[in-house]
Amino acid sequence: MTRTVYVNGDYLPEDQATVSIFDRGFLMSDGVYEVVSVLDSKLLDFGGHIVRLKRSLAELQMDNPLSDDEYLDVHRQLIEKNDITDGLVYLQVTRGNPGDRDFAFPPAGTRPTVVMFTQSNPGLADNPAAKTGWKIISVEDLRWGRRDIKTVQLLYPSLAKMEAKARGVNDAWLVEDGKVTEGTSNNAYIVKGNTIITRALSNDILHGITRAAVLRFANEAQMKVEERSFTIDEAQNADEAFVTSASAFVMPVVEIDGAAVGDGKVGAVATRLREIYLDEMRKAAV
Amino acid sequence: MTRTVYVNGDYLPEDQATVSIFDRGFLMSDGVYEVVSVLDSKLLDFGGHIVRLKRSLAELQMDNPLSDDEYLDVHRQLIEKNDITDGLVYLQVTRGNPGDRDFAFPPAGTRPTVVMFTQSNPGLADNPAAKTGWKIISVEDLRWGRRDIKTVQLLYPSLAKMEAKARGVNDAWLVEDGKVTEGTSNNAYIVKGNTIITRALSNDILHGITRAAVLRFANEAQMKVEERSFTIDEAQNADEAFVTSASAFVMPVVEIDGAAVGDGKVGAVATRLREIYLDEMRKAAV
Repeated sequence: MTRTVYVNGDYLPEDQATVSIFDRGFLMSDGVYEVVSVLDSKLLDFGGHIVRLKRSLAELQMDNPLSDDEYLDVHRQLIEKNDITDGLVYLQVTRGNPGDRDFAFPPAGTRPTVVMFTQSNPGLADNPAAKTGWKIISVEDLRWGRRDIKTVQLLYPSLAKMEAKARGVNDAWLVEDGKVTEGTSNNAYIVKGNTIITRALSNDILHGITRAAVLRFANEAQMKVEERSFTIDEAQNADEAFVTSASAFVMPVVEIDGAAVGDGKVGAVATRLREIYLDEMRKAAV
Repeated sequence: MTRTVYVNGDYLPEDQATVSIFDRGFLMSDGVYEVVSVLDSKLLDFGGHIVRLKRSLAELQMDNPLSDDEYLDVHRQLIEKNDITDGLVYLQVTRGNPGDRDFAFPPAGTRPTVVMFTQSNPGLADNPAAKTGWKIISVEDLRWGRRDIKTVQLLYPSLAKMEAKARGVNDAWLVEDGKVTEGTSNNAYIVKGNTIITRALSNDILHGITRAAVLRFANEAQMKVEERSFTIDEAQNADEAFVTSASAFVMPVVEIDGAAVGDGKVGAVATRLREIYLDEMRKAAV
């Protein structure tokens, strides 16, 4: 089936979906994005993702081209047109097409570019990796200094994922000044005793929508949460480790740089948080 | 006149020049670029730029889609079709269009995307700013850690240029760990006594093609060159300051963060280097 995608108000076959070569997203990486997971044809935490989208746009002084309801409508239409049961909707907004290349922003009123498309992923919530856990490596964090803004500057995360792949593991954790910032496209956690430890929010990491939900659920379940930085050595010696993201949900990490975490098996805390997260998110899906 | 641009082998009117929304350049900032200046319809230091392009591609394990001669032919055809006397040719290569979004690189054999276009700029070499000099501000350098690779991740330089514009000056110098790295799209220099001082090559700065030429000409003219880092304070107290880039050539800097450099006028060293650079480059243009 040819996918139907959305570009600036039009629903198009995927092979006819284009943007100008002068689009700021193509020439200047001047764009932001969101990924919303779909389970049972419904959107998970849509509201949280739209709030973050608007924050990213505001941080870059970029106009927000659609209302919340319009974004929701396009998401739903794409799910329907592409018959998505499980998968995701990707959304990207760029500063638009000024018709030429310039470091300076285009004139006020230049229409931002909006691109949205689906990816089907049947059985997304039953990913077998959640039962065995991920193996990861650590690499130096060389990204820019505003990782709180979800921009399309994804070249380094892409390179880090390829490094992980080349070394036969699932992902990489990024390390700066000796401390883990986050994974290539997820937030990073360790568990020591009864405490869940994850880096505090700052410009150094993405303000994960799944992170916010999982920490809320952890608090509600009387688990102790400590927001602070940790080292790879501390992670290797933790009882558990895991990551969270919109599409991996809560994913256990069982090996870091070749060293088993805890007993090298998927831990109880990560498993429980994954269950709670999926249960609560399914209930609240729109 | 409608510009004719080049996209993957085709010469197209600029308003019909597009790339897929799935292009890695649009979704992942997975692309590199070069800018070659044109004077009297001839290319300045074309060979140097193609060498750097190939280095950028190699550093990112990206295929090089065209031969040197093919690149040259497209440059020349665009200059002719668009009747460019003075201006530039912009060239971008991305990892291509895999037909979907994935952090992992596309399969081997995926054709890179090649986009090229001209910008006309009559009187480029007679830019009146060269007689009055630029005023600049300093801002923190928040870019990623591989600035030696000329990628399209230009959002931060774009933000820094907008900050400079908002503060009524021409450009910004980026500062990391207290030392100037470079300008937003140029290399930075100061002159103290008879010595030209500029940061040494590393992953921290662009390996400027104009920088290499200017330092070569400075050596040939018996000027002393010292490759080392310097602070904003040292720059404010220098005799001269200037920047180099493919399209600004050698541009004097007369004010940094509100403080005059030297006597606040365009200096003799920058002026002399600009003359030599333009003379030599015109002679060698192709």
